[in-house]
Amino acid sequence: MFEIKAKDNRARVGVLKTNHGNIKTPNLMPVIHPKKQVIDVKECGADIVITNAYLIYKDPELKQKAIDKGLHNLINFNGPIMTDSGSFQLSVYGDIDITNKEIIEFQNLIKTDIGTSLDIPTAPFVNREKAEKDLKITLNRAKEAVDYKRSTNMGMALNSVVQGSTFLDLRRKCGAELTKLNADLYPIGAVVPLMESYNYADLVDIVMNSVAYLPDNKSRHLMGAGHPMVFSLCVAMGCDLFDSAAYVLYAEDDRLLSTRGTFKLENLKEMPCSCEVCSNYTPDELREMSKKERTKLIAKHNLYVSFAELRLIRQAIYDGNLMELVEERCRVHPQLLNAYRQLTNYYEDLEKYDPRSKKSAFFYTGPESLLRSEVKRHLKKLRKMPKKRDLVILPPSRKPYSKYLSGKLGEFYVYGSENEIDLDKTDFMVLDIPFGLIPLEIDEIYPLGQNESPKNRDADSLEFLKDILFEFIKYYDQVLIHSKIIKDLNIDLYDKHPQSNEIRYLKNDLKKIKAIADYQFGIGSGSALFSGDDINIEKSKKTGKIRHVFDGKVPIVNMRASDSYLILSKEGAKRLHAHMEYPKNRIVVNEDSVPFVRDGKSVFSKFVVDTDENIRTNDEVLIVSEDDKLLGFGKSLLSAHEIHDFNTGQAIKTRKGIKKEEE
Amino acid sequence: MFEIKAKDNRARVGVLKTNHGNIKTPNLMPVIHPKKQVIDVKECGADIVITNAYLIYKDPELKQKAIDKGLHNLINFNGPIMTDSGSFQLSVYGDIDITNKEIIEFQNLIKTDIGTSLDIPTAPFVNREKAEKDLKITLNRAKEAVDYKRSTNMGMALNSVVQGSTFLDLRRKCGAELTKLNADLYPIGAVVPLMESYNYADLVDIVMNSVAYLPDNKSRHLMGAGHPMVFSLCVAMGCDLFDSAAYVLYAEDDRLLSTRGTFKLENLKEMPCSCEVCSNYTPDELREMSKKERTKLIAKHNLYVSFAELRLIRQAIYDGNLMELVEERCRVHPQLLNAYRQLTNYYEDLEKYDPRSKKSAFFYTGPESLLRSEVKRHLKKLRKMPKKRDLVILPPSRKPYSKYLSGKLGEFYVYGSENEIDLDKTDFMVLDIPFGLIPLEIDEIYPLGQNESPKNRDADSLEFLKDILFEFIKYYDQVLIHSKIIKDLNIDLYDKHPQSNEIRYLKNDLKKIKAIADYQFGIGSGSALFSGDDINIEKSKKTGKIRHVFDGKVPIVNMRASDSYLILSKEGAKRLHAHMEYPKNRIVVNEDSVPFVRDGKSVFSKFVVDTDENIRTNDEVLIVSEDDKLLGFGKSLLSAHEIHDFNTGQAIKTRKGIKKEEE
Repeated sequence: MFEIKAKDNRARVGVLKTNHGNIKTPNLMPVIHPKKQVIDVKECGADIVITNAYLIYKDPELKQKAIDKGLHNLINFNGPIMTDSGSFQLSVYGDIDITNKEIIEFQNLIKTDIGTSLDIPTAPFVNREKAEKDLKITLNRAKEAVDYKRSTNMGMALNSVVQGSTFLDLRRKCGAELTKLNADLYPIGAVVPLMESYNYADLVDIVMNSVAYLPDNKSRHLMGAGHPMVFSLCVAMGCDLFDSAAYVLYAEDDRLLSTRGTFKLENLKEMPCSCEVCSNYTPDELREMSKKERTKLIAKHNLYVSFAELRLIRQAIYDGNLMELVEERCRVHPQLLNAYRQLTNYYEDLEKYDPRSKKSAFFYTGPESLLRSEVKRHLKKLRKMPKKRDLVILPPSRKPYSKYLSGKLGEFYVYGSENEIDLDKTDFMVLDIPFGLIPLEIDEIYPLGQNESPKNRDADSLEFLKDILFEFIKYYDQVLIHSKIIKDLNIDLYDKHPQSNEIRYLKNDLKKIKAIADYQFGIGSGSALFSGDDINIEKSKKTGKIRHVFDGKVPIVNMRASDSYLILSKEGAKRLHAHMEYPKNRIVVNEDSVPFVRDGKSVFSKFVVDTDENIRTNDEVLIVSEDDKLLGFGKSLLSAHEIHDFNTGQAIKTRKGIKKEEE
Repeated sequence: MFEIKAKDNRARVGVLKTNHGNIKTPNLMPVIHPKKQVIDVKECGADIVITNAYLIYKDPELKQKAIDKGLHNLINFNGPIMTDSGSFQLSVYGDIDITNKEIIEFQNLIKTDIGTSLDIPTAPFVNREKAEKDLKITLNRAKEAVDYKRSTNMGMALNSVVQGSTFLDLRRKCGAELTKLNADLYPIGAVVPLMESYNYADLVDIVMNSVAYLPDNKSRHLMGAGHPMVFSLCVAMGCDLFDSAAYVLYAEDDRLLSTRGTFKLENLKEMPCSCEVCSNYTPDELREMSKKERTKLIAKHNLYVSFAELRLIRQAIYDGNLMELVEERCRVHPQLLNAYRQLTNYYEDLEKYDPRSKKSAFFYTGPESLLRSEVKRHLKKLRKMPKKRDLVILPPSRKPYSKYLSGKLGEFYVYGSENEIDLDKTDFMVLDIPFGLIPLEIDEIYPLGQNESPKNRDADSLEFLKDILFEFIKYYDQVLIHSKIIKDLNIDLYDKHPQSNEIRYLKNDLKKIKAIADYQFGIGSGSALFSGDDINIEKSKKTGKIRHVFDGKVPIVNMRASDSYLILSKEGAKRLHAHMEYPKNRIVVNEDSVPFVRDGKSVFSKFVVDTDENIRTNDEVLIVSEDDKLLGFGKSLLSAHEIHDFNTGQAIKTRKGIKKEEE
């Protein structure tokens, strides 16, 4: 019931399918009080709402109406409705007079689209014993609910809530256990007290550990998160749904929500956003209104800004610049910045989900950018690349660096054993933020060529550059460092290389495409793809960039103009397959799919039996059978992790199938 | 014709008075094409517009109508209108067929509210000779226009444009020369090419040098700046007015303005803001519309976001957190971040204008925060404070630090000559970002007690703390550094002080108010104010904070709860006046004002003949006569600099006057 349409780091734009239609995620469910509805939330942009089944159950009149006419009729909303089970009341009052089974049954009876079992929302910072005891009940009830749903063949989708208080291992355990149940959605519960106390760093730890073992093919709802200032951060952690009672509670209290925090009407001289309320009224006019009228307008404003933020977030995921949005939003409060810095500790987890190539350039927004998964990914790959005897390190120029190099490179200081210059034994790299060292051969590929950073540098950037420099110095016999770098980084190095003048970067297209192949597909790919005496490289007349590579007249790869990655042709796929050992670059499909892939049909996740775990969204991949026969090749729409979890939807957009006779 | 209502750093909320009413600044003037008006800009929030007098002059029909019925009628706008003179056309076409005098005369004839002389917009990066030659003409024409206006007693207000290309000394010279002319408004010209090439760092240098010598009592218009992504940065540099043709030009090109940059409609899957256009249409719906209808809606969106940003900026100035808004906005593009980092070089200039106390807490948003004027101001003051023999440096706790200190302070490492602990000879300070070292006695005053920073620290913060620590170590015999700091900052210090256990911070209210007085009014103020055997300190029963200080029963000062600064009473003012030498803490008024101040009337800028140059907005000041007789005391509404420049409006809100017999 959930499909991924676009991704950025752990964030995804998805489609959630319900009995009352499909909705886009990330999205916000305004909380509807079953008895009093202040404004028409649909008019303000709501696609899905949430209400409380327990409150309806407890009110004889509401209950009867809900049973007779259905929930959608009761609250007058014809889109998808989620209901909560009374867990919140349980957490507040300590006890409620309904069983788990009863509330499940009732939710199904009144035709909720998505119902919730009666979990125990364990508050943050309780003792371990309490957290464990509560979790046991939560897990039992989740299982009971799923079993009951299955045995009665319920049409209602089911939430199973991740709990575990602030114990990260319990959160992970709960996620893993619930995953086994195969529920329909996975809310993350009991985080409201952390948000109320601005403890966003702990929120990051809890959410990241809650989602760690949750399946990627189910949507996740961060329960009680309704303030637009945290949406982007939470989406970046993989949350898909939010709910907001805040829009109306804050309105009743004359408080206006904003991505910059909360504004109290009493302090406002100016209206803070571009919505129709802010554009048409002044704070004085609002203050002079009746309480009722004012509450309505502020509630509308609160929803307008919330839905605008969610649209902006979805657009940022499509564009591949969500992290830049998060980095901007996190400046509005030091505790949010602290939380974002905390999130950078999870770069390995984020990297697993991050597409290889995106539409937007990578923007450096501050020291945190140096810790992004794209940077970590590049450095990890760079460490594994083959290394020559010597290394020349150049200062940054305009990008792509190799295009704007001057003929005379300047003066170089030498580190390590001073050798005779031998350009054949020399790697050339540029030292720059945020990617550290960028080999000139691969300086056009995403994001190494598609990024911007400020010229005025911070201390973290300088430290980062020094650290990378001194790390890579160790891998080479002789390292030649450009005088500008010596000066900028204040490096204690006094020996100029006597042959400084002889250092030239000799552009070589064959070396370039080999280096790109090695970086993209793994070491050895370059020589595997581009061996032969008749490798022809065709360039664009307009831009001078490499477009096609042939062996004689047989196409091997194309180079994509937007990100300079290589797109395989049939011959390229065969060569790669022949030389790179299983399971490198491979998607393995089951026996039944073999003829379809050979026919050029795209691959659905449920037919994938194995993958190279390094595959990421937008990677070019080989599609093989279980006995490693090459069936075709294509572009991955998901990361390896996600392909494993999904059993609906496409995994690989097949570019071409390979017939048996073509193998 | 310009008054300041609120301030933050160099930014100000002001009121610009025109023949067609008052408008709030910062504000945006949508450009109205005299022949085609796409939308009703007033409906979208415009209070003032700009149009081109030269285009009207050149079109016989428009010209006649403008002369007959007036400009306001011609473009159907009944608020203030500014006109440009044809300089832009001059810069594009090289030559135009009208003289400076003619265009001034024509603008006045058609009843423009604010007209412009025919300056030469010299492009960036021309050679010096060209820039100097152009500037000479610009200055001559500005003088000619002002002279002509005076001699003919024109009702029209007059712009004199600051030019000088990218030569910073020419910009300063131009500002200084134009200031002598006493024109009505000072636009800053020829910066559009810099904005078009994202060269915001040079824009910062040019604007800061252009405004450096401009008078504070005139509004400044950054010509051609119409993109909301730069508004906050430019307001922080002291710009009051912007103009936008962008709203319609971008709309015609299917581009949507946003504080996050520009969105091309073709790339949008979601509408990016909360305005009524974005809330009511999808990108697909816009794409399917007629070009005309779509342009209208996008132009509206462009104005809605622009005016929303200006409202938010004005609110931020009222709240005293404009720099936090700028720091957030500058994350949207690395060149903007670079520009903001460039702006931090001008901290001395910003500090001169920054109010001493503000409504909002100081938020750390990144390394740039360490370079803000508030931080520089504190460190400068701290260096001048009297120092005891020894210094104890503590790690941060909750704020105010002194309230949350534990009894046992922990282990201390010693730096310098190890002496016997003597608490009477010891200063106690907390080491924290962003303010470096905070003496415990003054830890409640703004902004030392009103700030937040992330716990996860960046390299600049650690370097900053180390630098401050090692600077202050030099001023003391023995410095005792808490073990936590040694660990956090990784300091090579191995000698624990054997008397670590005896180190206690002994709270002493008298010492505290003396320290605050010294910090606030200058060294010696504490003993001047609080000498006597019967100093009584009265605290709030609710908060435990100091509220009033008496000598016997005579009130000396109150302490303001919000920022812990001291408010003088009559006795306090007299003591301060008697002990602090001229012109410290003083506002000197002319002879005519003496009786009014003695009567408790507030002080207008034009009656001030001298000031202590260290006076800042919200400072408590002494009001004296030219022979330094104490006339009263009050709160400064402006900084010393501004008081000098203004000849209208209040400078000091007098708290109390002092009669001759009370002296």
